[in-house]
Amino acid sequence: MDAVNHQVVLRSRPQGLLTAVDVELVETPVPELDDGEALVRTELIGIDPAVRTWLDDQRGYLPPVQLGEVIRAATIGEVVSTRCDAYGVGDVVTSLGGFSNYSVARDDLFTTVVRRGSDHPEEVDREELLAVFGSTGATAYFGMHDIGRPGPGETVVVSAAAGATGSIAGQLAKHAGARVVGIAGSDEKCSVVTGEFGFDACINHRTDDLDAALREHCPGRVDVYFDNVGGPILDAVLGRLAMNARVVLCGVISSYVTGEHPGPANWVQLLARRARMEGFNTMDKWDRYEEATTELRRLCDAGAIHFRTHVFEGLDRAVAALNALFEGTNVGKTLLRP
Amino acid sequence: MDAVNHQVVLRSRPQGLLTAVDVELVETPVPELDDGEALVRTELIGIDPAVRTWLDDQRGYLPPVQLGEVIRAATIGEVVSTRCDAYGVGDVVTSLGGFSNYSVARDDLFTTVVRRGSDHPEEVDREELLAVFGSTGATAYFGMHDIGRPGPGETVVVSAAAGATGSIAGQLAKHAGARVVGIAGSDEKCSVVTGEFGFDACINHRTDDLDAALREHCPGRVDVYFDNVGGPILDAVLGRLAMNARVVLCGVISSYVTGEHPGPANWVQLLARRARMEGFNTMDKWDRYEEATTELRRLCDAGAIHFRTHVFEGLDRAVAALNALFEGTNVGKTLLRP
Repeated sequence: MDAVNHQVVLRSRPQGLLTAVDVELVETPVPELDDGEALVRTELIGIDPAVRTWLDDQRGYLPPVQLGEVIRAATIGEVVSTRCDAYGVGDVVTSLGGFSNYSVARDDLFTTVVRRGSDHPEEVDREELLAVFGSTGATAYFGMHDIGRPGPGETVVVSAAAGATGSIAGQLAKHAGARVVGIAGSDEKCSVVTGEFGFDACINHRTDDLDAALREHCPGRVDVYFDNVGGPILDAVLGRLAMNARVVLCGVISSYVTGEHPGPANWVQLLARRARMEGFNTMDKWDRYEEATTELRRLCDAGAIHFRTHVFEGLDRAVAALNALFEGTNVGKTLLRP
Repeated sequence: MDAVNHQVVLRSRPQGLLTAVDVELVETPVPELDDGEALVRTELIGIDPAVRTWLDDQRGYLPPVQLGEVIRAATIGEVVSTRCDAYGVGDVVTSLGGFSNYSVARDDLFTTVVRRGSDHPEEVDREELLAVFGSTGATAYFGMHDIGRPGPGETVVVSAAAGATGSIAGQLAKHAGARVVGIAGSDEKCSVVTGEFGFDACINHRTDDLDAALREHCPGRVDVYFDNVGGPILDAVLGRLAMNARVVLCGVISSYVTGEHPGPANWVQLLARRARMEGFNTMDKWDRYEEATTELRRLCDAGAIHFRTHVFEGLDRAVAALNALFEGTNVGKTLLRP
């Protein structure tokens, strides 16, 4: 085991995108364990939009990362030493280990475990676990299952369709028998969305006339909109809602960096169309996490869910990995291997 | 029976508020009946915000009133002659008779009937029927019952609380055990809202600092918001939502006249608070009309629902009666006696 831990800590609060001057890559000792703790060597870090929101000085569903603290992020790794009953050496653990080579898992914090021996942890696909079975897949599942509830023959639109959550959300809707139209930011992404993820169509919002494309691809209007972005795209889809439509508010990636959330002028269509717009947060639903992962596993095994990852190498790429989410340059789940 | 009918017909489409030049009070013959029709003498006309929306040249849930047509409105009246089995002379009928002394009820159009003889139509309280048991009360019931669903101890805010729908919506929430805070446009209205309609508090949005007043009167934030107005009041309440809040979109009286619906900047609170905003229209729920009226009758008889009316006299007051809704000058249900 290395005696040294590397961590990315927050030095100043970013204005807009995170920059190299806001963070520092520091060397620290590998943590000493107390009773009830296990030491986890990070294998992969999940890069989610939420990571950026935790850097602002405002209370969200988790407290903000404080200056000097390690930047919080979901991780997967292997237990390398333990002083608790919950985890044995060799277990594979997911937790909020952050941008760090090593982190401490406590038996009172939520984690998922693949036990050494019983489940062949060496065979566990770490990328799949973060891309499909972490909060990403659960978010797609809860949003689509609890709020969107698409039925056979309905039309579902998904924004950020090439992204980690959107790609799975669309595949879940497709499996439910819906016609699924993605919205993404490049022709390359659109071809992945239709080719690999099996959407029926995909609109490039940077080059297509969005209103015209929605009319073309959603002739019967939009029954379910799974929104990851907010902003003008939300407004355009609100203008195309079907009667009794459901708008799933999953994220507002258009404004995590700017902090501005212009009101959608077409909100009044909710009234005209007897439609519903509803926000949710996967953190509230951890007691149903097994329900989500069981269904996702079944669909993965049946070949009904495909995923892609984009892996950045090295903790010194942390800023680039995070900003890639907001620059819209990646397809699928963004990961960082420390 | 008069041989002459008086009707208010639309001559030009209003820009903003309806004006005297947009309408004409005309004399026409009393309609001749075909088979399957009955002639109804209008006793009272219900003045709803929807009447104004039907004058714009855009398809809503009903087609727009055409130039030269009688202005559409809900009415209550007595059958004075009949050529159908559905209605007998002396029956009391509610229908969309419009701004007219006489109208024709057909047996294939929705109406409610109080039968002469069996139900003592001479004792029917026509004002109560339009104020509580017409679409007004049903709208309050369906919005609160199907979407708001307030529970004991929850905090409910109702805008246009002195109005026909808001006053009943708040009383339904109060009966469900909630703490109910109204928002209205004058101190006089606020005192009726708390004094006669039994709300726990009422905010005058024209003089109070709305954000501060919401903090004061909703210390545990807002679980249900029954919105009749849209605009800045909607935005303010969205900024004060509790977790898992429900926003009932019933109407947008702030913009029926202007046609402008600025997007509420605080819509993103739906995501932060896992809240829902949902529109509805009572017209969709006529098959459950009896459920609504049965419950409203029970509560009226138990003294749990009070109502107020403001009656304008004469068809020449039609424009004034309609505009009173948007000028915010009335308390309770606005009616016109032709």
